[in-house]
Amino acid sequence: MFGCLVAGRLVQAAPQQVAEDKFVFDLPDYENINHVVVFMLGTIPFPEGMGGSVYFCYPDQSGMAVWQLLGFVTNEKPSAIFKISGLKSGKGSQHPFGAMNLPQTPTVAQIGISVELLENLAQQTPVASAAVSSVDSFTEAPEELIPRYENFQRRLTQNPLFWKT
Amino acid sequence: MFGCLVAGRLVQAAPQQVAEDKFVFDLPDYENINHVVVFMLGTIPFPEGMGGSVYFCYPDQSGMAVWQLLGFVTNEKPSAIFKISGLKSGKGSQHPFGAMNLPQTPTVAQIGISVELLENLAQQTPVASAAVSSVDSFTEAPEELIPRYENFQRRLTQNPLFWKT
Repeated sequence: MFGCLVAGRLVQAAPQQVAEDKFVFDLPDYENINHVVVFMLGTIPFPEGMGGSVYFCYPDQSGMAVWQLLGFVTNEKPSAIFKISGLKSGKGSQHPFGAMNLPQTPTVAQIGISVELLENLAQQTPVASAAVSSVDSFTEAPEELIPRYENFQRRLTQNPLFWKT
Repeated sequence: MFGCLVAGRLVQAAPQQVAEDKFVFDLPDYENINHVVVFMLGTIPFPEGMGGSVYFCYPDQSGMAVWQLLGFVTNEKPSAIFKISGLKSGKGSQHPFGAMNLPQTPTVAQIGISVELLENLAQQTPVASAAVSSVDSFTEAPEELIPRYENFQRRLTQNPLFWKT
């Protein structure tokens, strides 16, 4: 469903699926990475009303995983470039990968993708420094999601299970 | 062999092969494109001693194709991010797609990939404004190619057909 490309390296198209709705790519030698591209392969779209939040995870000095929200991919915006070179000393943020205990290796980071309701994505704020440009990265407050979110809410009111059909 | 991704859009993995050693991706609505990612799919490597020069082609006001060299992909650096948003009023450069007469549509640009000897790539200078970063984009004078080029020349002296074997 997803691909991940570190600029300068070979593309990865086989993430580890760590939960039904969560996917992880390893990023070896992450300290030498500037930009990461996350994209949908075009084979399977998100279920209607859903999208993916994209996280960067790296080990802090004590080996604990630090997670930062980079941005989003959706059926309407199925790819994004993120700049991760400025994030390596940042503070962690809330994330949905909490209980997974991904093995931490000092030189290996991760990209995590969590499939969620657009409703939830619209309430999340990515780290500003991950934005390559507002056009490309979709890391700003996702205004474009709001009309779809309102539409989603309206349909949800009419039929709480519409998105399952 | 190649993939192309416009940030924010679906990935393309099926270029038009316009000659044995030349591949072209269409970029619709190119005026709204900031960044383009060009990458090898990982299925077929370049023949030893060869790599790809990556060009951006767009129609000028009179509908003539303008070509600009963005940078390179090689087996050692199989992907690159290029910024094309600053190139739309630039001057054309020499290119190897001359006789192809790609159909020009006012809103459609192209990414062209030409498979060439590393020896030739090392003598080409991409437009500076296409660089996202020297680490990622490989748009600077390709110093990294030089040692391989010298090695290539040495082997060529020993056996002019070694790279065919």
